[in-house]
Amino acid sequence: MSKSAPTTSLCRYTDTEIFYRDRNLVDELLTGDSDFVTVMMQHILGRDVPPGQKRVMNAILITMMEHGLTPSAIATRSIYMSAPENLQGAVAAGLLAVGSQFVGTIENNARLLAELVDLEGDAQAARAAGIVREHRARKAHLPGFGHHLHKPDDPRALRLLEIGEAECETPRYLTALRTLSAAVDAEFQRHITINATGATAALLGDMDIPVELMRGFAVISRAAGLVAHIAEEQRKPSGRFIWETIDKAMPFES
Amino acid sequence: MSKSAPTTSLCRYTDTEIFYRDRNLVDELLTGDSDFVTVMMQHILGRDVPPGQKRVMNAILITMMEHGLTPSAIATRSIYMSAPENLQGAVAAGLLAVGSQFVGTIENNARLLAELVDLEGDAQAARAAGIVREHRARKAHLPGFGHHLHKPDDPRALRLLEIGEAECETPRYLTALRTLSAAVDAEFQRHITINATGATAALLGDMDIPVELMRGFAVISRAAGLVAHIAEEQRKPSGRFIWETIDKAMPFES
Amino acid sequence: MSKSAPTTSLCRYTDTEIFYRDRNLVDELLTGDSDFVTVMMQHILGRDVPPGQKRVMNAILITMMEHGLTPSAIATRSIYMSAPENLQGAVAAGLLAVGSQFVGTIENNARLLAELVDLEGDAQAARAAGIVREHRARKAHLPGFGHHLHKPDDPRALRLLEIGEAECETPRYLTALRTLSAAVDAEFQRHITINATGATAALLGDMDIPVELMRGFAVISRAAGLVAHIAEEQRKPSGRFIWETIDKAMPFES
Amino acid sequence: MSKSAPTTSLCRYTDTEIFYRDRNLVDELLTGDSDFVTVMMQHILGRDVPPGQKRVMNAILITMMEHGLTPSAIATRSIYMSAPENLQGAVAAGLLAVGSQFVGTIENNARLLAELVDLEGDAQAARAAGIVREHRARKAHLPGFGHHLHKPDDPRALRLLEIGEAECETPRYLTALRTLSAAVDAEFQRHITINATGATAALLGDMDIPVELMRGFAVISRAAGLVAHIAEEQRKPSGRFIWETIDKAMPFES
Repeated sequence: MSKSAPTTSLCRYTDTEIFYRDRNLVDELLTGDSDFVTVMMQHILGRDVPPGQKRVMNAILITMMEHGLTPSAIATRSIYMSAPENLQGAVAAGLLAVGSQFVGTIENNARLLAELVDLEGDAQAARAAGIVREHRARKAHLPGFGHHLHKPDDPRALRLLEIGEAECETPRYLTALRTLSAAVDAEFQRHITINATGATAALLGDMDIPVELMRGFAVISRAAGLVAHIAEEQRKPSGRFIWETIDKAMPFES
Repeated sequence: MSKSAPTTSLCRYTDTEIFYRDRNLVDELLTGDSDFVTVMMQHILGRDVPPGQKRVMNAILITMMEHGLTPSAIATRSIYMSAPENLQGAVAAGLLAVGSQFVGTIENNARLLAELVDLEGDAQAARAAGIVREHRARKAHLPGFGHHLHKPDDPRALRLLEIGEAECETPRYLTALRTLSAAVDAEFQRHITINATGATAALLGDMDIPVELMRGFAVISRAAGLVAHIAEEQRKPSGRFIWETIDKAMPFES
Repeated sequence: MSKSAPTTSLCRYTDTEIFYRDRNLVDELLTGDSDFVTVMMQHILGRDVPPGQKRVMNAILITMMEHGLTPSAIATRSIYMSAPENLQGAVAAGLLAVGSQFVGTIENNARLLAELVDLEGDAQAARAAGIVREHRARKAHLPGFGHHLHKPDDPRALRLLEIGEAECETPRYLTALRTLSAAVDAEFQRHITINATGATAALLGDMDIPVELMRGFAVISRAAGLVAHIAEEQRKPSGRFIWETIDKAMPFES
Repeated sequence: MSKSAPTTSLCRYTDTEIFYRDRNLVDELLTGDSDFVTVMMQHILGRDVPPGQKRVMNAILITMMEHGLTPSAIATRSIYMSAPENLQGAVAAGLLAVGSQFVGTIENNARLLAELVDLEGDAQAARAAGIVREHRARKAHLPGFGHHLHKPDDPRALRLLEIGEAECETPRYLTALRTLSAAVDAEFQRHITINATGATAALLGDMDIPVELMRGFAVISRAAGLVAHIAEEQRKPSGRFIWETIDKAMPFES
């Protein structure tokens, strides 16, 4: 066994008081203008959150909340139909889609940007060009770029970058992303969009959020989106339709 | 198969635009002062949200986010230790705790209040007294009342009621909860606290949120709290300590 | 805190030995003819398992393993597409479908049978008739009877009953199910099939498996079925097809 | 959209018949001596299963089923306490632990063995020595070797290898594992145990099971083990004890 017990800095309570980190929940956090996103950021990150970062986080959470009948939403609706008494199970099922194929690309892009942020000017541009050529040479997808639907530009990405550049005091990751984007366009001789996950990676990086925590914010945002799908399912059920549609659409072949 | 396909009102998109319900995501929702909680409420509830309701929802989400090393947090930390590459799995595991024993009491309390809200004055008081006596007679716990730790009053409940009463224009559920509370104290001849789930039930009821959707907001809030536990786990791991502590604490008995 | 710690009877180990309950894993359970289903039953139920019960359990597990592109399988395939690095998440998502709408009817049927098993002959028949009339009067579905597809008889149910009647020494639940079935046919003046969940409830009941544990065997069996869906997904991916099919089939309506 | 719909080979059904792949469920699989493990293997692997492979699979499933109060079992018990109405959620939570830190090492070991199986004699020994030296040089754990508890030998691994060598006609992976083990002992000048995951990797490899499907069998086996923990929880609840123990053991530190 470990020599000494690990500790927690998240919460303590007595009969009459509850603290989130060092703040009294009732007296300091549940005030007239209390704001969930600010409290959540302070709680997760363990530091005060400047107003600009709060605005950026709101934009990120709104953007990642919803994209229609995705695999995540289909899973949630299928499970909700089967076990409507367990709403949390339907949300949990859908959240399990926050993996490598969609949201995980945030992390992959952030890792690329981390290779660039300590360089400046020509050195950064040269390293970015190298990254792009190296991906192209092995025919690898460059995370954070391209979108199968939103062309020539992902409208969400443009707005997120705009918000980030307005709010961020020292936009190191944003600058690195712009540099990488220029290298992409130069290498392919045409404009390829920065996508929403690419923009999100830069914004989270500029808030000093560790790469391995980044998808956590997608999970929170997506939880809200999936509750909306369940609310719709309660009024306009689609679970049986999804079942019958797929069962018919995929024939048996021995 | 159903005659006609179900429809969705949540999202549509083209190459250049994305809509959440009838609002353009980029132009209408990702504005300088965009607010995740407001967008989320509009999206889930399908209606505009008055500022007072937004303040109440922020208070609810903050309150349900965290309560230390609960079974939910223990599950999340145990899974995160085993599969740190799948942050979403650790959150999903913890969210599965949002069931009957803790959060589900919100719904049970809301159903009691629903029996009272259409009554007034003496009729409401009489029905409330009947509900309390009936629960006492079968030694059933009255959902929304009492707390094993926070006595004589749950400080969160008092503040939530205060916020609700300040913000809510027609506090029908809040009034019913106060009536029920008076009946509880009269029947047991001592003060028993309204707890946080009781207060939450009344606040959600007064926002016309259907009972079967109520726990969805606990799921969203708790997702944020569990991400905080994972962030702490990344810096101060406790998963192996939890394992060894429980493995030692529970002896084998044939 | 509880006065004394709870204990576990499931497993103990030293540097050189591992025990499942009171049996040495290596010396007693991993023998040449070791059988997972038998070991699993002994481990879950904490008692020896007669050969007839082993045969019945094999039949139940095989029957509940698969039924094509169900909501459970659709959820698993959707999650697997999104996070293929996380096979266990895809299975977990699909297992969350083992809820009230399908498998939960096993428990509801078992509870009805439990009302009948202590009665005999005419008294049992009278109580069964009462149960059927009472369900019909409130237009409630009678759990364990009817199938939207398999008519006039669910072939799985017939075979399971046959196996159960061959293997079970004192078929109290099976007899009660036959009595209930006769009451159903008499009340509705036509034959309504016992379905697979009804037959399963009786077989599990006659093995003295508690109602609240019954769905656990569906979970184990379904886990195997969902791994088969993932194996197929690895060779013939359908996740993107499911996504695109549903996204097209459910139009936006504001 | 894809040109043509994907197909499924797993299941088809009519009003009166159900087929698992090409076999009639009732007539061919639910026979007197029907065996879940055999049917499951045929269903997942899409081929007939020789008796020796069935015996090996039973041994593997039994071995991976249980190891006491692991993080997986702690998560299941914590969730079951919170939502006992939702047994499948408690199992799903525990299964999410089947990730990189424990079971995932099966896959890592299988990948090493795959580098060796096509070599013979001295060439295989030389490559094995190279793999060991390379891991040692970067102080990386060699997957499949060593156990923090079971020393000098993991008794499960020895028995699994014994069973595999008795049943397997062309033990290519088993031979490669023996070669790797010899290289480990030579490099470190002492005996280091092959562990249960190492042995399992070799046995699954010699059944031609793809690496990316291997953890699926751990999921099935562990599902059974977690149902046993829930059955014990129903008779001797530990969920609240786990909560209180951990809450006390991990102090708050600001």
